Amino acid sequence: MVTETVFTWSAPPLKFGDGALDEVGHDLADLGVRRPALVADAGIAAAGLVERAARALAAAGIAPERYLDVHVEPTDESIRAAVAWVRDREVDGFLAVGGGSVIDTAKAMNLLATNDGDLRDYLNPPIGAGRAPTDPLLPLVAVPTTAGTGSESTPVCILDVLDLKVKTGISHPLLRPTLAVIDPTTTATLPQAVAVASGMDVLCHALESFTARPFSERPRSATGAARPAYNGANPISDTWSLRALDLLGRWFRRAVHDGEPEARRGMMLAATYAGIGFGNAGVHIPHACGYPVAGMVRGYMPRGYAATEPMVPHGQSVILTAPAAFRFTYSADPARHETVAAMLRDDDSAAGGIDALPSAIANLSRELGIPSGLAAVGYGDSEVDGLVEGAMKQQRLLTISPRSVEADDLGDIFRQSMHNW
Amino acid sequence: MVTETVFTWSAPPLKFGDGALDEVGHDLADLGVRRPALVADAGIAAAGLVERAARALAAAGIAPERYLDVHVEPTDESIRAAVAWVRDREVDGFLAVGGGSVIDTAKAMNLLATNDGDLRDYLNPPIGAGRAPTDPLLPLVAVPTTAGTGSESTPVCILDVLDLKVKTGISHPLLRPTLAVIDPTTTATLPQAVAVASGMDVLCHALESFTARPFSERPRSATGAARPAYNGANPISDTWSLRALDLLGRWFRRAVHDGEPEARRGMMLAATYAGIGFGNAGVHIPHACGYPVAGMVRGYMPRGYAATEPMVPHGQSVILTAPAAFRFTYSADPARHETVAAMLRDDDSAAGGIDALPSAIANLSRELGIPSGLAAVGYGDSEVDGLVEGAMKQQRLLTISPRSVEADDLGDIFRQSMHNW
Repeated sequence: MVTETVFTWSAPPLKFGDGALDEVGHDLADLGVRRPALVADAGIAAAGLVERAARALAAAGIAPERYLDVHVEPTDESIRAAVAWVRDREVDGFLAVGGGSVIDTAKAMNLLATNDGDLRDYLNPPIGAGRAPTDPLLPLVAVPTTAGTGSESTPVCILDVLDLKVKTGISHPLLRPTLAVIDPTTTATLPQAVAVASGMDVLCHALESFTARPFSERPRSATGAARPAYNGANPISDTWSLRALDLLGRWFRRAVHDGEPEARRGMMLAATYAGIGFGNAGVHIPHACGYPVAGMVRGYMPRGYAATEPMVPHGQSVILTAPAAFRFTYSADPARHETVAAMLRDDDSAAGGIDALPSAIANLSRELGIPSGLAAVGYGDSEVDGLVEGAMKQQRLLTISPRSVEADDLGDIFRQSMHNW
Repeated sequence: MVTETVFTWSAPPLKFGDGALDEVGHDLADLGVRRPALVADAGIAAAGLVERAARALAAAGIAPERYLDVHVEPTDESIRAAVAWVRDREVDGFLAVGGGSVIDTAKAMNLLATNDGDLRDYLNPPIGAGRAPTDPLLPLVAVPTTAGTGSESTPVCILDVLDLKVKTGISHPLLRPTLAVIDPTTTATLPQAVAVASGMDVLCHALESFTARPFSERPRSATGAARPAYNGANPISDTWSLRALDLLGRWFRRAVHDGEPEARRGMMLAATYAGIGFGNAGVHIPHACGYPVAGMVRGYMPRGYAATEPMVPHGQSVILTAPAAFRFTYSADPARHETVAAMLRDDDSAAGGIDALPSAIANLSRELGIPSGLAAVGYGDSEVDGLVEGAMKQQRLLTISPRSVEADDLGDIFRQSMHNW
């Protein structure tokens, strides 16, 4: 096999720092936007961030239309409602202020405000038709308010398809925000449970992209036409991922326990680095498993979330299988697994070798109040077949696994993840 | 003073790896380009890279118009000729294959093929009128063939204005290439003197941005409107500067002496990091001094260049004053200066403290065949006033100096740079 020698990389322009949110009026005016949709959710509004954004817009003479009904963990139904709203209005851009749910919803609104057809037309196959947009999208400025999502950097929108009980998405370069505005002060009012779960998402982004199958192990795409959006690990993503892990090791515990501005700034920077890194390298087994873990939820209500229906927050859904997943992938590159384990441990007496990374993740999870395993969010061995089936649908992610992974392997990983301690 | 809390960052999408040049047909087709101008110079053509690019285009059914008359270190005259050429033709995009001279020339051709007026209208004030383009530019794919320029990532075009004997430029976000295609195999035929000079340019990019005045020491721009394109040192630029210096320390000597593919790949990656990572931080004294050192040249003909008239290659022009410049800036942040000095030394017996970085740069310069100082490229003390006057015009760069710098300081730096060993 002639192996790949080339990788690709891209990221949106970004603005980072305390107070960056207060400049969005200037940013939107620069992009020629005069009448944006300001997209957020009830929690963001309650935290005062919608008013803060509106003040910044007003300072530039911009009056937005407000859409505050984003559903936490968007569904096809919630997105259709948001699309119906925007198709009834004349907007010339989007300002999304919120977590991944808000930014992903704004991406879908932007796509379907500018291109005709139904949401289903654009969803990734086999669930949707994978249609590509033909008309240009409007400017979208994304302001993440959790140190987690990475959605501000990615060309992806993730949602639940309710009748199929499956998570899927839309993936197209035009979905990438025009500008990411990252302001650590927006996380000051983040509930602790949300800070923990979103930090675990960042951790998975960084760990999965750093351990992803290197781009140089794929077959060579002679013309570049067949190269996937998720490249696998490469020198650029490695740099971002390691810097993210360094920041996580230093600030995650302190951001949760003490919440001082420097710690929140460190976590926001980690989330930014991880978003840029994994957005090109990709994520693998824990994220593939996280989809059905979230999608098949029945009775679990997460503590510390204002959820009105059962849900497994995305960050929880991805971290729960991470210890078993990284035990499975260890043999593909022991040195990489041990390197990152050492960056997460806060003592030197911990496990080494194949157990180093699983135990570092489990210890951090336990310390920060993550559920103890899949059993704690309502799953038992009888659900494993369904979980495997759901994860196997995420071949886009599983091909990035550093070790080939089959249904039996995923079954083992789900079973081992029932009780992480 | 309320100090700045926000920094900005951006970089073009990139494709990196051996053979990436052979995919440009696919890239241009993806951008909708059918009839590009293929811009290069005689040296690039002689190295076979024009034919290689043309084959890649032909594979995608694209027939380019060829412009191979780029002037090494472009002048207003050479750029006007290139613009006249392109204004006579119907092209719908640009493929620039070459060093900074080629890529910068293609940027100016793109600007003036799509927007009316004369070159002088767009040059930075006070030399030009600083006019901003009003019409969109065409897609420009940049393929750097030296591990040095960084031009593939920047929104800047640099040229000599012959009648004023001054280097200046055009600076506008629309000038940034649409895609950077970075193929380390293109440097295989790079003359050794060019490899050395362009590597020194990368070294200066990394050293100057890592030691630049931190963004957080500027006055706060409340709306973001007054924030300069060059931010100063920030966490993202620091990461990439250090990674570039790490690669330079490991590969620069080997790329010049042995030229094995791994060393060339390492140098090309270091140059890329300059573009993506710290093009936003900025450069300061050595680059500001490099402008008049190159612009006021009289008799110097660099060895190993196919120059037909006197010139100081850009990489030489910036490294010659670097030892004295970093002795001057040392007190602003001794730890940073000593950190990077340690990354460049290849033995532990070298000078420490304020002399560490100047001596590391001088030793590397001597080892790789850089002229021994300004005297060796034709300058004497009687030219210092003129050099100072030229450097003082680069206030855009000098404001990024970590220590305030006046004409007298620059005079000292130029005088100390006559003989670096």
